[in-house]
Amino acid sequence: MRTTTALPAAILAVLGISFGLTTPSPAPADEGVWTLDHLPVRALQTAYGFTPTPEWVEHVQKASVAFPGGSAAFVSEDGLVITNHHVARGQIQKLSTPEHDYLRDGFYARTQAEELPCPDLELRVLVTMEDVTARVRAAVDPKAAPKAQAAQLRAVQAKLEKEFSDRTRLQGRFVELYRGGEYWLYGYRRYTDVRLVMAPEGQAAYYGGDWDNFTYPRHDLDIAFVRVYENGKPVKPERWFRWSAQGPLADDLVFVSGHPGTTRRQLTVAQLEYLRDLQHPIRLGQLERRMAALQAFAATGDEPARRARSTILSVANNIKRTRGYLDVLRDPSLIEQKRREEMDLRRRVAANPQVAAETRGAWERIAAAGRELRRRHREHLYRDLDRTATLVGIATQIVRHASETEKPNELRLPEFRETQLETQRFRMFSPAPVYPDVDAVVLATLLDDARRALGPRDPWVKLALGGREPADVAGELMERTRVGDVGFRRVLVQGGSAAVRASDDPLIAWVRALEPLNRELRDWHEAQVQTVESMEAGRIARARFALDGKAIYPDATGTLRLSYGSVKGYEDGSTRVPWKTTFLGLYDRAEAFDGRRPFDLPPLVAGARAKLDLATPLNFVSTCDIIGGNSGSPVLNRNLEFVGIVFDGNIPAFRWDYDYDDVQARCVAVHSAGILEALRRIYGMDRLADELTGGKMATR
Amino acid sequence: MRTTTALPAAILAVLGISFGLTTPSPAPADEGVWTLDHLPVRALQTAYGFTPTPEWVEHVQKASVAFPGGSAAFVSEDGLVITNHHVARGQIQKLSTPEHDYLRDGFYARTQAEELPCPDLELRVLVTMEDVTARVRAAVDPKAAPKAQAAQLRAVQAKLEKEFSDRTRLQGRFVELYRGGEYWLYGYRRYTDVRLVMAPEGQAAYYGGDWDNFTYPRHDLDIAFVRVYENGKPVKPERWFRWSAQGPLADDLVFVSGHPGTTRRQLTVAQLEYLRDLQHPIRLGQLERRMAALQAFAATGDEPARRARSTILSVANNIKRTRGYLDVLRDPSLIEQKRREEMDLRRRVAANPQVAAETRGAWERIAAAGRELRRRHREHLYRDLDRTATLVGIATQIVRHASETEKPNELRLPEFRETQLETQRFRMFSPAPVYPDVDAVVLATLLDDARRALGPRDPWVKLALGGREPADVAGELMERTRVGDVGFRRVLVQGGSAAVRASDDPLIAWVRALEPLNRELRDWHEAQVQTVESMEAGRIARARFALDGKAIYPDATGTLRLSYGSVKGYEDGSTRVPWKTTFLGLYDRAEAFDGRRPFDLPPLVAGARAKLDLATPLNFVSTCDIIGGNSGSPVLNRNLEFVGIVFDGNIPAFRWDYDYDDVQARCVAVHSAGILEALRRIYGMDRLADELTGGKMATR
Repeated sequence: MRTTTALPAAILAVLGISFGLTTPSPAPADEGVWTLDHLPVRALQTAYGFTPTPEWVEHVQKASVAFPGGSAAFVSEDGLVITNHHVARGQIQKLSTPEHDYLRDGFYARTQAEELPCPDLELRVLVTMEDVTARVRAAVDPKAAPKAQAAQLRAVQAKLEKEFSDRTRLQGRFVELYRGGEYWLYGYRRYTDVRLVMAPEGQAAYYGGDWDNFTYPRHDLDIAFVRVYENGKPVKPERWFRWSAQGPLADDLVFVSGHPGTTRRQLTVAQLEYLRDLQHPIRLGQLERRMAALQAFAATGDEPARRARSTILSVANNIKRTRGYLDVLRDPSLIEQKRREEMDLRRRVAANPQVAAETRGAWERIAAAGRELRRRHREHLYRDLDRTATLVGIATQIVRHASETEKPNELRLPEFRETQLETQRFRMFSPAPVYPDVDAVVLATLLDDARRALGPRDPWVKLALGGREPADVAGELMERTRVGDVGFRRVLVQGGSAAVRASDDPLIAWVRALEPLNRELRDWHEAQVQTVESMEAGRIARARFALDGKAIYPDATGTLRLSYGSVKGYEDGSTRVPWKTTFLGLYDRAEAFDGRRPFDLPPLVAGARAKLDLATPLNFVSTCDIIGGNSGSPVLNRNLEFVGIVFDGNIPAFRWDYDYDDVQARCVAVHSAGILEALRRIYGMDRLADELTGGKMATR
Repeated sequence: MRTTTALPAAILAVLGISFGLTTPSPAPADEGVWTLDHLPVRALQTAYGFTPTPEWVEHVQKASVAFPGGSAAFVSEDGLVITNHHVARGQIQKLSTPEHDYLRDGFYARTQAEELPCPDLELRVLVTMEDVTARVRAAVDPKAAPKAQAAQLRAVQAKLEKEFSDRTRLQGRFVELYRGGEYWLYGYRRYTDVRLVMAPEGQAAYYGGDWDNFTYPRHDLDIAFVRVYENGKPVKPERWFRWSAQGPLADDLVFVSGHPGTTRRQLTVAQLEYLRDLQHPIRLGQLERRMAALQAFAATGDEPARRARSTILSVANNIKRTRGYLDVLRDPSLIEQKRREEMDLRRRVAANPQVAAETRGAWERIAAAGRELRRRHREHLYRDLDRTATLVGIATQIVRHASETEKPNELRLPEFRETQLETQRFRMFSPAPVYPDVDAVVLATLLDDARRALGPRDPWVKLALGGREPADVAGELMERTRVGDVGFRRVLVQGGSAAVRASDDPLIAWVRALEPLNRELRDWHEAQVQTVESMEAGRIARARFALDGKAIYPDATGTLRLSYGSVKGYEDGSTRVPWKTTFLGLYDRAEAFDGRRPFDLPPLVAGARAKLDLATPLNFVSTCDIIGGNSGSPVLNRNLEFVGIVFDGNIPAFRWDYDYDDVQARCVAVHSAGILEALRRIYGMDRLADELTGGKMATR
């Protein structure tokens, strides 16, 4: 058989073309965690033809919820709030008992009456914001010594916060933006009667465990629902997000409204090098040792495993995150790029005499503060106990509360100012269960680390250990202390300084003895490092404003921000990664691993395969700019419908701590359609699904 | 609520442990493409407690099939052969017509009568092997000039091959192992009546297209079935593999029996640098330009797209592979490792006086041959036309056949020796359709490349183009030649040299004119490069044998080899990759990309979702050592049951061209259970499925 066709001349003409990699036209960078007073209106209009109205912005603000350690959103007129399972994990753990392991098995309120009050959960909604930069700057003398500047800054903050709270009847919180370039007061409405409505099984929420954490494609139902009450009734929030049953489609414009914790994009190169060389490696070592000890503890039985579960998950998360941050910082290209940017900025500053005069010495003084920090970094990093062991934290709160509340408001530590006391007491008197055995494990590793790093003759180590072994000290303190008893705490706090001084509780006595050294260190850090960095970085930020106008957004500070971007996949290695996953992918992963841990399915999920529409989207990615703290943030479409909930970034998004790019880095969210499908067909939670689609509590 | 438990002393005791990355005990390396006469018996016994019997080895050998460009296997007593769709692609293309696009739509013989004879497919089975190293070495004078050595080598090969074929009645083929360390004669049984039984749609076989090629997780039904006939009846093969309906499980020991094409693990560093610096980059550039031209051609209509399909897929495959090889070679760690290994070997050689004497000058002479190759590399790489444009290839065959067959057997080019002529004529007189338009596109880019690289004044370029444009020359040659006509070819070949000399066919005349320059180049390469490399690398290989015993396997040479390994997944980035994929994953991928090309499903596959057991395994990976040419190799369990068919390696396996490791590199195969499920529930090919499970043709 022979085949011929005439040779089209057109074909032969194409042969002259030369083939190569074509440069794609640069995509608009969907960069920034923007404050709501300062949105990138022009970029949004240019890239997406969208301009938010004031009403739109107010809606975002008032339907967004600050959840401790993360973000959340109102999703019905009856105070229903959605967040991530892993954000609510601490509360679910606190609600669990040896008889009801809700973290493992999930919790499902079939009626409103079954909703379970969270022991110590405080949610907040941002109601108003005021720029107080001018008043703060006027109160701090830039020529004073660092210690004096620190005192001036503390005093003016206390004064402004108090005035603001008295005037607005809201909880005022001081917010430093642009690393000192601006100072604001944010006013919050607080909610403390919050009840758990639904949480899936830990294995459904965290499918794939530590392996799949920070990974995409992902298949997690990382959701939890709580309801906010006031005066025993579901609250009627001022604003809430309607639920999109369809959810987002490929290439949709979406927004993320939430509370990103910390980004380090506006740090100097010297500051980044400190993180790379000292802070991250030391923290990572501490976390890894803590993990080993906790796992050994958990391996001793089902009940120890249950008690330690939330702590272990949180430590594992921090290990993987810290490793990711270190990988980014150790990539020489990142530091090189930062160095180029810094040199470029300094050149432009130097070229403008007025700006140069106002910025003179700023980088040098930050570098000097960095050298001071390096000098004492071991003490700074290894004496830091109270954030990790619950009972040590509570004991420290009690000891400090006694001494601080005796001082005038302007002289106190920021967290003990008048305006913050209610929140402090809410935490100190939490009826949540404490686990002295878990605390002992954690405290012992911290003490062991400190001794190793600071040496046995360090004054703090000597005081803390008294020549004994860390495990013995921690074990004895935790076994004998009564700080786990809320009644005991109340009596101590009511007794004030005298009661604390007189207490023979071993943990209180131990914290009390260490407190002078801890306070000295904290005061040193505040004056010699924090205040210098804030003052000088503030100068640099204002230099930027002077040169470029206010074209940038501030580094994340745990306060409300809006990001925007496109729903889209990316290339990875040799192939493409799709913008979404489906339930098909979840069951595929379970089958592909032969159901081996941590890729096994909880029984309800395994049993629902035939009932589900398997093609329903489960997770999806977008280019929205996020960071830790954004977990639980609603993903919204341009009509402010809820289309998903952020719960992770992929591995390339670790870079976002220092620099945004959208080549591969993505924000990972649970898809709103997948949530509905799961509620109805896996969990039989039609009551909840109906409330989401109807916008109010179902009346069945 | 407060909870306490006694602090178990055991917990506190663990706190002393120091946490870190534990080093896993090194897994046995499942390395090697072993010849069947020299299997790694001890390693297999140690790692897997398995020792193959002679009967086992003979079964592997005789049930394995050499398929042009790949591998295959007998899977029923009635001559049924399975290979990859992409290995059979050329034949499926040749069977297609404007009315029946089997490459796109698949082919399904519902009865034996519908099986479709392939136009020019020759399958071979290895029947016997003889080591002729001593006779070859005795015939070559190591002190002679390279040109004389080349002639001696050619002559002894021709003589041995002829003797062997006359004696065994098999097709003898000369095989050089260990890059010259050993010489063998392999005797093959040939089959030329082969009929297509079943091929799925191109999109099912090659799901995910170029994106997913060389990628895992993968979801491809890359299979095709043919049946071998003799005397008009299905052949009864001496051995065939029984089908495992269950297929492999995680951690199973498996074997791959096939025809790996070329590995470069035993090259010197200088040879690797030639590949890295010149050969791969130049080939890649050629491929990319050819691709651009072919795509432009295919874009002109459905019929051009159909004609160019197989060529485009093959070029795309080569581009991705060559890029992968380049990435590996450009990773400095690979070359450094190779340099260390080479220095270590040379040190050990030098330390043994006898071995040193026999190896003296070997590396230096290979390096000198490499310099000679670099000197003429442009001619060598850019004048190479006949393997790429079908009609140029046939015309070259005709011209050479005429001149070579007039010479004594010992002086001929290897492919025109007595023993090979049947195969040559089978190809020359193939009735398969030719596409002069596709050929013109390919030839024009080759000529354009050659002119660019060699310059318009190069004698070969001047002869080839005569001062005209490449597209004009190629277009005119292809439009006017009659070489596409099989009758025309037969007349020319029968007429011998005289007919060729007298022919006024423009393509014959053009090839004839270029032939003296092409032959000069080929003779130079054979004498100055190939023979030197073979002789000297042979010396190095024998030095290895002398030092270590024959502990190694030879680089792949396109001849039958056995690999072994475990079915297992691996870690990638932050997570684990499972050992298998399932149909759930296939449908997930299609849904996740919203069915966009190339992630769309063909209609039969899309329609079968509800009928399939979706958890059936589709593809799986193992640590078996493979390389291009292994495509279509059966994967076998220790009982010699067929459990899958190799069709790809993942991206890390590109490294296997130069060095084996099993950290992430994997061999990718279609799972035997997935094939059965697809045949029955997607394609309704119960006849075929029954033959596989029953081992013989179904009688329904």
